[in-house]
Amino acid sequence: MVHQEEFTLTTHRHGEMHNITGAVAEIVARAGIGIGLVNVFHVGSTGAVGAIEFEPGLERDLPALFDRLIPPSHDYGHEQAWHDGNGHSHLQATLQGPSFTAPVAGGRPVLGAWQQIFFLENDIKPRKRRVVVTVYGE
Amino acid sequence: MVHQEEFTLTTHRHGEMHNITGAVAEIVARAGIGIGLVNVFHVGSTGAVGAIEFEPGLERDLPALFDRLIPPSHDYGHEQAWHDGNGHSHLQATLQGPSFTAPVAGGRPVLGAWQQIFFLENDIKPRKRRVVVTVYGE
Amino acid sequence: MVHQEEFTLTTHRHGEMHNITGAVAEIVARAGIGIGLVNVFHVGSTGAVGAIEFEPGLERDLPALFDRLIPPSHDYGHEQAWHDGNGHSHLQATLQGPSFTAPVAGGRPVLGAWQQIFFLENDIKPRKRRVVVTVYGE
Repeated sequence: MVHQEEFTLTTHRHGEMHNITGAVAEIVARAGIGIGLVNVFHVGSTGAVGAIEFEPGLERDLPALFDRLIPPSHDYGHEQAWHDGNGHSHLQATLQGPSFTAPVAGGRPVLGAWQQIFFLENDIKPRKRRVVVTVYGE
Repeated sequence: MVHQEEFTLTTHRHGEMHNITGAVAEIVARAGIGIGLVNVFHVGSTGAVGAIEFEPGLERDLPALFDRLIPPSHDYGHEQAWHDGNGHSHLQATLQGPSFTAPVAGGRPVLGAWQQIFFLENDIKPRKRRVVVTVYGE
Repeated sequence: MVHQEEFTLTTHRHGEMHNITGAVAEIVARAGIGIGLVNVFHVGSTGAVGAIEFEPGLERDLPALFDRLIPPSHDYGHEQAWHDGNGHSHLQATLQGPSFTAPVAGGRPVLGAWQQIFFLENDIKPRKRRVVVTVYGE
């Protein structure tokens, strides 16, 4: 059995984090699947998803980490071709990845008490983001 | 068809690696699924899973890499809020991720001869870890 | 319903990127699955898969990023044990990961207009690579 829905997010700035655990859990509940898996996927190449303890400290630390490891620069090949200032956005998003899968049990995502699902805006301007959630199981 | 089991790991120190390929393969065998996928998921925000050639050299290199890229520091926002010394643990675990998916064929995970599934302890003290394995297919 | 196929790639050098979106989409089309998920998996420990805007700039930037964060070195434990010069290849491949999952809808992978699936050769010599694609859904 497969159930698929999507939702959108509006982001305002580079490094903005969204806690999307609740939105994903609601879709899992509507799927009527007791046991299985849920995949969360961002459609686009400059945003990322993953898992983190979603609290204000790490909400700043994770984007800061990406900007330290993969800083904005005019030296990227992407920049030299497109001049849109977001070469680092692409590389950050690729390294973290746009896809996250968690188990489902008892009709809910299986996550730790301090483990939430996030969306991270890596791009440099406000964006409307599309997240596809696919639940499968029985 | 979906089959889900979990197992626990006891870890002793930051950077400890566990080869969990055998434990995962046993669950896949018990699932009675010939072809499909297996997802391995760590429930918690300071441990990671993934694939590596599991040999003593890389068993040291991977945790050392994470400590070089994302070192312990009191400057993390997480640290300033919680003072528990494991800001880097969270960031390392998020970057590597807690979820790993491999194909199943012939009732076994499809992996290279030198490709194993690992659990990496990113936290700074001994922990009991919960790993959920979900097999689906036919 | 599950459908699994594999294909091979021939690579020539470290840092070579392949756009495998078309090959994956063909397998998804043959699967006859309208809605579900597709997993793309590289069998081996020195190659990676993921998603990126596949254009010549980023095709150079991503391997360059990995070589900057995880450079070739004789100091890796893997190197000291095996002397095969590819310690960095293993670590790069593990950090990016060999597994990528995307939703399927309308019999096609759901991807952004500028979001493609890549294979990245992290090893230091030409290789023949095996990619397993598993589609599941209904």
